[in-house]
Amino acid sequence: MDMEVGQVLHMNGGVGETSYANNSLVQQKVITMTKPITVDAITKLYCSSYPVAIAIADLGCSSGPNTLLVVSELIKAVDSHRRKMSRKSPEYQVFLNDLPGNDFNTIFRSLSVFQNKLRMQLGPDSGPCFFTGVPGSFYGRLFKKNSLHFVHSSYSLQWLSQVPQGLENNKGNIYMASTSPPDVLKAYYEQFQQDFSLFLKCRSEELVNGGRMVLTVLGRRNDDPSSKEGCYIWELLAMALNDMVLEGVIEEEKLNSFNIPQYTPSPVEVKHEVSKEGSFSIDRLEVTQVNWNAYQNETDLSDAFKDGGYNVAKCMRAVAEPLIVSHFGEAIVDQVFQRYREIIADRMSKEKTEFVNVIVSLIKA
Amino acid sequence: MDMEVGQVLHMNGGVGETSYANNSLVQQKVITMTKPITVDAITKLYCSSYPVAIAIADLGCSSGPNTLLVVSELIKAVDSHRRKMSRKSPEYQVFLNDLPGNDFNTIFRSLSVFQNKLRMQLGPDSGPCFFTGVPGSFYGRLFKKNSLHFVHSSYSLQWLSQVPQGLENNKGNIYMASTSPPDVLKAYYEQFQQDFSLFLKCRSEELVNGGRMVLTVLGRRNDDPSSKEGCYIWELLAMALNDMVLEGVIEEEKLNSFNIPQYTPSPVEVKHEVSKEGSFSIDRLEVTQVNWNAYQNETDLSDAFKDGGYNVAKCMRAVAEPLIVSHFGEAIVDQVFQRYREIIADRMSKEKTEFVNVIVSLIKA
Repeated sequence: MDMEVGQVLHMNGGVGETSYANNSLVQQKVITMTKPITVDAITKLYCSSYPVAIAIADLGCSSGPNTLLVVSELIKAVDSHRRKMSRKSPEYQVFLNDLPGNDFNTIFRSLSVFQNKLRMQLGPDSGPCFFTGVPGSFYGRLFKKNSLHFVHSSYSLQWLSQVPQGLENNKGNIYMASTSPPDVLKAYYEQFQQDFSLFLKCRSEELVNGGRMVLTVLGRRNDDPSSKEGCYIWELLAMALNDMVLEGVIEEEKLNSFNIPQYTPSPVEVKHEVSKEGSFSIDRLEVTQVNWNAYQNETDLSDAFKDGGYNVAKCMRAVAEPLIVSHFGEAIVDQVFQRYREIIADRMSKEKTEFVNVIVSLIKA
Repeated sequence: MDMEVGQVLHMNGGVGETSYANNSLVQQKVITMTKPITVDAITKLYCSSYPVAIAIADLGCSSGPNTLLVVSELIKAVDSHRRKMSRKSPEYQVFLNDLPGNDFNTIFRSLSVFQNKLRMQLGPDSGPCFFTGVPGSFYGRLFKKNSLHFVHSSYSLQWLSQVPQGLENNKGNIYMASTSPPDVLKAYYEQFQQDFSLFLKCRSEELVNGGRMVLTVLGRRNDDPSSKEGCYIWELLAMALNDMVLEGVIEEEKLNSFNIPQYTPSPVEVKHEVSKEGSFSIDRLEVTQVNWNAYQNETDLSDAFKDGGYNVAKCMRAVAEPLIVSHFGEAIVDQVFQRYREIIADRMSKEKTEFVNVIVSLIKA
């Protein structure tokens, strides 16, 4: 069951149009911020071998306004470069991956408009783009050997394949927190190591030699995994849930057995796993941050914070609702997120709140 | 618009579970009948080069109980043969194609159970199977160059890319019929030639040298395209519609402008296009037939015919409803198919009624 909960979760956007559309604001900003790195990586890939066909996979593509954003940027980058070099356009094979519960129908029905627009932007001498949907967990093989040139993943790899085993002592918390005992932090870290290492191994089998990956993962700068950076957003949800325990709405035992299958790694931890697994070299490793309320005008904080609380809670609801429902049932969901929203709005009005992104650009050795 | 109507149609099964489940009975029987030919073709393909990965595409896969039937037979055939030869299993890459309106979500959500079952049947030393969905019309490129080993298509290629131009004189008919003037037959044939030839050209670019295709298409034996074999099922629908014109339920002009975007070719016509296009040689070309009521016990015709009329009308409704609705509107649909059902039941009680299948097994030269 935990496995499935984890799988539901890392497919963000499965919860409905309203929640999803907002979740996309943060992601969109992150994609824009990461663009120089992805463009740099695919341009280097293209120039290293000038393949006649480029196979690109987006892992955890979700289904919303951002699903095709990165892919179109990658294709435009290659096209712009091949024009400068006066080369014939390659063909593009695009694999869009997410868990089987993702709404692929919606993606597929939007493809025709997207492809026409892309064709207009690129011009008639550009190679065809073939789109395919690939359902399945990226913590396993998804593609045949040596079949990919470029892998992209944004805001998906922080999700673990399952809730770690051995979190019995994490009472009152729902994720790593400053009050979590060391064995809880260890269990989380080991699950991250196991999952990320498996991810790297699978992708190394699927990528051609010289193939590249750009991975953006929700992470932290701090060495301490229970530091506020990675954990604060979940601590606020835990506050809402603990309040409901105090009021008798939720049983204490129920809360004690609830934990989020996520790990927000530091750049050092990412680097360590990459080097231990051994198939990839690191071209770039960077850290950025994005405000919880991605489009908040920072000079006008007092006016924006109320909307901010609403927006961030909506965004987090899209992500957390399947987990809450699966563990606590449908009945309390609205109340949880109403409380969560108030807590978030309060904090955002008092302090600077940011998500930290770890971005790594890798080359298959 | 006509283009879209044609596209809706060749995606059979888009109309709903009830209609579709029945439609599948005829298809399932056809797939079973064609099995010796598909198994022969993929075994020869495998033995010709022992590829380490086999890429299989099913074009017009629909979404129902038959969607994965052929694929599992193809994989089992290869696996059985590689065991006899004591060879290591290849990896399998399966591309499931249909129009973007097809219900890929349902296919994807059933894959996990299917894959587990297949893995159990094949044993642990069998290579992994990777499944992808490919939305788009097969009357255009769908895959990158030289990327496929095997193409399969069953009961889809009789659908044209659009209603032919120049059918103004086909009054009272909705398809080719004995009373259709020569220019109508010519317009249908030319559309078939254009579409089938484009199909062959696209696939020849996508298949590796020595790659193979097995295509099963609803067809006819007779040289005359307006002969009963291919057209009767539509003539009965035309009868229902003409009755409704006489009763003033449908406007005569509306009926006169309605035509089915289908062509049921003869083996000679299939052979002619293949040889004209030039990329493929024919390994086998066969004709079979299947009773309209695929599971009717033929020794007990009198008991079965009533259900037969119901079953066949349901099956045809799944296919024809989108076209009827798009042309005549929603309001008359139930009445059309009630009448159609009665007409079909009557004919089935009086004569032997069969679909003719043309099956061609091709090798990319």
